[in-house]
Amino acid sequence: MINKITIIGVGLIGGSLAKAIKENGLAKVVFGFGRNSDRLKMAQKTNVIDQYSTTLEEAINESDIVVIATPVGSFKEILSEIKPFLTGKIIITDVGSTKTNIVSMVNQTLGEYSNCFIPAHPIAGKEKSGFEASEPNLFINKKVIITPLEANSSDSIKLVQKMWENIGADVDFMSPESHDELLGMTSHLPHMLAFSLVNYLISKNPSASIYAAGGFKDFSRIASGDNVMWRDICIQNKDQIISHIKGYQKTLDSLVEAIENENRDKLDLLFTNAKKTRDSWVG
Amino acid sequence: MINKITIIGVGLIGGSLAKAIKENGLAKVVFGFGRNSDRLKMAQKTNVIDQYSTTLEEAINESDIVVIATPVGSFKEILSEIKPFLTGKIIITDVGSTKTNIVSMVNQTLGEYSNCFIPAHPIAGKEKSGFEASEPNLFINKKVIITPLEANSSDSIKLVQKMWENIGADVDFMSPESHDELLGMTSHLPHMLAFSLVNYLISKNPSASIYAAGGFKDFSRIASGDNVMWRDICIQNKDQIISHIKGYQKTLDSLVEAIENENRDKLDLLFTNAKKTRDSWVG
Repeated sequence: MINKITIIGVGLIGGSLAKAIKENGLAKVVFGFGRNSDRLKMAQKTNVIDQYSTTLEEAINESDIVVIATPVGSFKEILSEIKPFLTGKIIITDVGSTKTNIVSMVNQTLGEYSNCFIPAHPIAGKEKSGFEASEPNLFINKKVIITPLEANSSDSIKLVQKMWENIGADVDFMSPESHDELLGMTSHLPHMLAFSLVNYLISKNPSASIYAAGGFKDFSRIASGDNVMWRDICIQNKDQIISHIKGYQKTLDSLVEAIENENRDKLDLLFTNAKKTRDSWVG
Repeated sequence: MINKITIIGVGLIGGSLAKAIKENGLAKVVFGFGRNSDRLKMAQKTNVIDQYSTTLEEAINESDIVVIATPVGSFKEILSEIKPFLTGKIIITDVGSTKTNIVSMVNQTLGEYSNCFIPAHPIAGKEKSGFEASEPNLFINKKVIITPLEANSSDSIKLVQKMWENIGADVDFMSPESHDELLGMTSHLPHMLAFSLVNYLISKNPSASIYAAGGFKDFSRIASGDNVMWRDICIQNKDQIISHIKGYQKTLDSLVEAIENENRDKLDLLFTNAKKTRDSWVG
């Protein structure tokens, strides 16, 4: 059993991880760090975390694992603030949605302690944010991608891997670059499309939504994601996201062409393929 | 109470309408027409319809209301086949997702009986098709848009309006053009985006879907819509759909620009607006 796990940023993901660790008895103390003591007090009161502090030194002191669970835009600052309190024994990991950028930040900021940082990303979430929306079962049967650094010891990697596996997740390994390309496609792109759909409707006819069926609600659900989180992801995974949006626009162009030409066979094929593939993915 | 309602095309929408009419005791006989007698027999056996026929003359004979519930691409043929059996007393209506095109088909095909056709569109559906997926509650609290023709008598319009209201729907009236612009935006566009997202992922990396979170599943659900239905809608609402896709691409362009420039304020604004509006729509 781990003595102390510190969660930096007790929001939806941090809070769900805290609850899952407590529910599975994986650590003696789940310690929360944040900037707002009222919020942390509430998280403690509702049994999300055991203890908390608004000073990093206290939060990290004698911790076995520190999990950074804040929006990725705040990582640089947090890494710099953490560094003075590192010992070489404290394992640091994260839950950030981008990896290449974070890895280079870690290398720049943590210096001799960068080998203690195990970059990870649980592919789980929902459109609500804050620890109030957290659930201990959020990670069950969800993928967690670890993108190890060359300098990471296999023991440190295993520690983080076990943490996720013990709360029901399925861990995969890949390079930070593959992660960002893949997630740019399966997560960042759909979010950009959903945000843009809502923005397009706002620009055309804000009252149109009363004529939207259930499909629209599902489709636009992810447009309710947290704005700071998505702003940070856009900036950190900029190249991949732009490249996927542009690639997607070409797919739209060929659909427009098929509609323009009333190319029934092509339209049939496009819709049949999409349906078949989507059903096989979900089924 | 109506004596006989005929449903032409006993699929998801036709079957759900049939069930709702039976459940609410609105007609003595709900009569199904289709091309496949095995399917119709099954629909009768599972209590979706009371009687059926594969000949239009028998299906329409002495019917009070005929509801065309086939994909919109088949309307022209059906209207021509129906015409010889019309009497001036039979009210015809439909559930098609496009209206301008259908109205002009009705005017071209039905001649002196075009005043008997009340164009309508219930905004309800799901990604499954066929009467097996039908449900009597499908239309409760759903919008039905009626786009009356100038020649329609107010009694005929009321008859169709009451039919929908009696099964729980909320009827609105507008012009066929407004309908097509509106639905092009709230329904056809999201479907095109979802089909294209899946097609883009297929083209890039078909196995990527295992790294997709719940949001992706919701987002892509409508990519499982029926291919024939969507092919027909694309062709019939061609101009509106193309115009909305192109407009949407401009919205994507301005997102790309904000990401390229790392314009944090703009990104914040785009995501905050989308989230706020989406949340207010869904309530």
